[in-house]
Amino acid sequence: MLLNCDIGESFGAWRMGMDEHVMPLIDQANIACGFHAGDPITMHRTVRLALKHGVILGAHPAYPDLQGFGRRSMAFQPEEITALIRYQVGALSHIAESEGGRVRYVKPHGALYNDMMRDDAILEAVLTALATAPSPLALMAMATADNAPLRQACERHGIELFLEAFADRAYDDQGFIVPRSQPGAVHQDPALIVRQASDLAAGRPIRTITGNWLTLEADTLCVHGDNAESVAAVEAIRQALGARS
Amino acid sequence: MLLNCDIGESFGAWRMGMDEHVMPLIDQANIACGFHAGDPITMHRTVRLALKHGVILGAHPAYPDLQGFGRRSMAFQPEEITALIRYQVGALSHIAESEGGRVRYVKPHGALYNDMMRDDAILEAVLTALATAPSPLALMAMATADNAPLRQACERHGIELFLEAFADRAYDDQGFIVPRSQPGAVHQDPALIVRQASDLAAGRPIRTITGNWLTLEADTLCVHGDNAESVAAVEAIRQALGARS
Amino acid sequence: MLLNCDIGESFGAWRMGMDEHVMPLIDQANIACGFHAGDPITMHRTVRLALKHGVILGAHPAYPDLQGFGRRSMAFQPEEITALIRYQVGALSHIAESEGGRVRYVKPHGALYNDMMRDDAILEAVLTALATAPSPLALMAMATADNAPLRQACERHGIELFLEAFADRAYDDQGFIVPRSQPGAVHQDPALIVRQASDLAAGRPIRTITGNWLTLEADTLCVHGDNAESVAAVEAIRQALGARS
Amino acid sequence: MLLNCDIGESFGAWRMGMDEHVMPLIDQANIACGFHAGDPITMHRTVRLALKHGVILGAHPAYPDLQGFGRRSMAFQPEEITALIRYQVGALSHIAESEGGRVRYVKPHGALYNDMMRDDAILEAVLTALATAPSPLALMAMATADNAPLRQACERHGIELFLEAFADRAYDDQGFIVPRSQPGAVHQDPALIVRQASDLAAGRPIRTITGNWLTLEADTLCVHGDNAESVAAVEAIRQALGARS
Repeated sequence: MLLNCDIGESFGAWRMGMDEHVMPLIDQANIACGFHAGDPITMHRTVRLALKHGVILGAHPAYPDLQGFGRRSMAFQPEEITALIRYQVGALSHIAESEGGRVRYVKPHGALYNDMMRDDAILEAVLTALATAPSPLALMAMATADNAPLRQACERHGIELFLEAFADRAYDDQGFIVPRSQPGAVHQDPALIVRQASDLAAGRPIRTITGNWLTLEADTLCVHGDNAESVAAVEAIRQALGARS
Repeated sequence: MLLNCDIGESFGAWRMGMDEHVMPLIDQANIACGFHAGDPITMHRTVRLALKHGVILGAHPAYPDLQGFGRRSMAFQPEEITALIRYQVGALSHIAESEGGRVRYVKPHGALYNDMMRDDAILEAVLTALATAPSPLALMAMATADNAPLRQACERHGIELFLEAFADRAYDDQGFIVPRSQPGAVHQDPALIVRQASDLAAGRPIRTITGNWLTLEADTLCVHGDNAESVAAVEAIRQALGARS
Repeated sequence: MLLNCDIGESFGAWRMGMDEHVMPLIDQANIACGFHAGDPITMHRTVRLALKHGVILGAHPAYPDLQGFGRRSMAFQPEEITALIRYQVGALSHIAESEGGRVRYVKPHGALYNDMMRDDAILEAVLTALATAPSPLALMAMATADNAPLRQACERHGIELFLEAFADRAYDDQGFIVPRSQPGAVHQDPALIVRQASDLAAGRPIRTITGNWLTLEADTLCVHGDNAESVAAVEAIRQALGARS
Repeated sequence: MLLNCDIGESFGAWRMGMDEHVMPLIDQANIACGFHAGDPITMHRTVRLALKHGVILGAHPAYPDLQGFGRRSMAFQPEEITALIRYQVGALSHIAESEGGRVRYVKPHGALYNDMMRDDAILEAVLTALATAPSPLALMAMATADNAPLRQACERHGIELFLEAFADRAYDDQGFIVPRSQPGAVHQDPALIVRQASDLAAGRPIRTITGNWLTLEADTLCVHGDNAESVAAVEAIRQALGARS
């Protein structure tokens, strides 16, 4: 089980995230590409930090909405989504390759991620961007109780799939994370977070919010580096899962 | 002598340039990359049009200033200029490669072009971006009476140089184009434009604004596709210079 | 029956609309405020042109989406919509007052207009912005077969309402305009456009797309100044309706 | 002697400044207007916080450069500067008046502030924006050894002038602050900061960086709320100068 983290989300004079603390703990860095966060200078700094720590580079493209941090759905046509993903992935890839690295996968950000999970036309637009890229790009998407449709869509395009799960979020019986607006959606207890991480890593079932058992097939856990508390959680998860390979 | 043209300068709902008319006539397309013009969809459309007509793809990066069309100088640090060129060139390159093409050269746009021509630190920042790119990128810059410094800077970085001249602009004795604010800066007479193009192509001297003779070593002529009149001038130049090779 | 037109939709170097030709023909100018079109310089030029021709000034605020021209829905909270309307209306109002004019009404643009017509929370957010403005602002919204809910909402806030209708669009039986994606949605025949304008102005029923009769109560007709053809249509409507009062 | 502070410099998801801690301590709030920081929602929050604490509202307009935080000079024409100031001041004024307040003065931000202090055409462009505003707006600008030119320019336009000085910055003999790039430019010693504040407030001379004495006529001290340390400095200055009147 790998650890991935959204990173490089500063913009200009504004700082966000404890990137220097969390980067040594993770395997995969989802790097902002300028549309929701991450200006060209921040992208360079983030790529260099990831390369320094041997972290796999991923692109984290978003809807073009700095003020909304890419969290607002925007009504784009599929062709436009393919275009804006290529644009952002290309910008980051070129920076990475100029610095001696290579972008390996793409994880859409925020509202684009959610829209992709629920709308096949948007998923197809994302996969089209990846399948036509000059070098192979995997997709990182959300593990649910039924990963078959996602797997089949990726296979049709010859795209590798990383399925991600969450250690700090409650799940419903379909394997979707409970919306933050509902009580109990986010785990606060560090011990519970580490136990859910360990269970997911071992392929053991976890308890859903209704008390049922859910088994998730996942390749990577999404962790957070927003503040000292979340970095401490990553450290605990890292320790429970064992050192990076 | 090749013909190059700034192109793909529409943005969203706004149209600019008669791209479809001028593309069949030129050899090199300087394609806007989103910072002064050219959103991701426009970039796709422009790349496809260039590939359809066998035109060489160039990136036309700029300062981030849509409202000013990249024509306003902005006080960037050299490291930032390297970063913003990589970002834009990368975005366009990825789109081009996804569509089966490849970006071959970079021509900075507007104020960035002018700043590069007069400030060695900015030229160096541009060359650094090109020299570290994952595949070779030439620079397109302005031919003057003394191209030696520019040639030497490019050689130091192992970068190919395309020197461009202008058929429709008056030159001063140092081989710089006369600023538009001065009378006589822009040739209006079609016959004069074609003659200057032919003279430049043949390596013959041209008359400067003071009446002296100036010989410019140039590889490519910058032409314009803004309106029917400028497209007609490109057609006349194309005819005078012979068909595309 | 007044004539209103979306105007001032240029941005930086990009030109859109034949503002100088259509301004003398209309009564109300819906002026772009910088979020979908209209930079500060364009706003000044447009305000001066409207004042020169004695046209009533209206603000045309939009979602912040230059690349999408404000035509894409964006998932904003009501409080955010109130905030972005105040911001844009304030910017235009200050420019207008600095030039000796005053903004009298607000017509939301594009996707924000459509969202307001179908979502009461968004309508309420718009009305809140208008009701708390330092000087009275009317709302311009779409006339349908049943204007009562809109009238009541405006009355609750003490806001004057301008209902607009379209001379060049087909209507359905509920008094909504037929989406452009459907055949017959946009009238091409100049005679039909003028007749629909005259019928709407006289309070006479018009034929819907299903062939039924529809009576619309409307105060103002939305006309377009995009190109020579649409300006000609405005001239014909102006002539049919009589000179500006 | 009043205290003023740049405030409301968050943007979207990014937080900057301890606004809630510093607002109760200051007299004048220089509120970001969206071009370098401060989206419409942040502007509302900031206006409400200032009104709650009885702080005088000022607009803090900037060049349109979010990524550079308005700190980069941009080559604008004077007419464009007048336009962008009106736009930003209008947006904030409308928000303020909708919330029951009123913007009283304008302090240009960052590079625009510096450009205004050294370029008379830019100062004139700023004053033109203020002089034509629908209600009186004062200018906040930098006190130097010779305030006469600034005072005369403001008088010509009938504009009130607030001269600001800095408690934490070293001055040269002409009364300009020493650039941050030079050693000793920023005072670190809290006692020295409070003493300089007290001396400036009492009209007593302060030591310049060369050891000479400098008397500055100033109406307001610029303080900072970036972090706990700078807020502590404001508290000490507030205590030394006495409670807000």
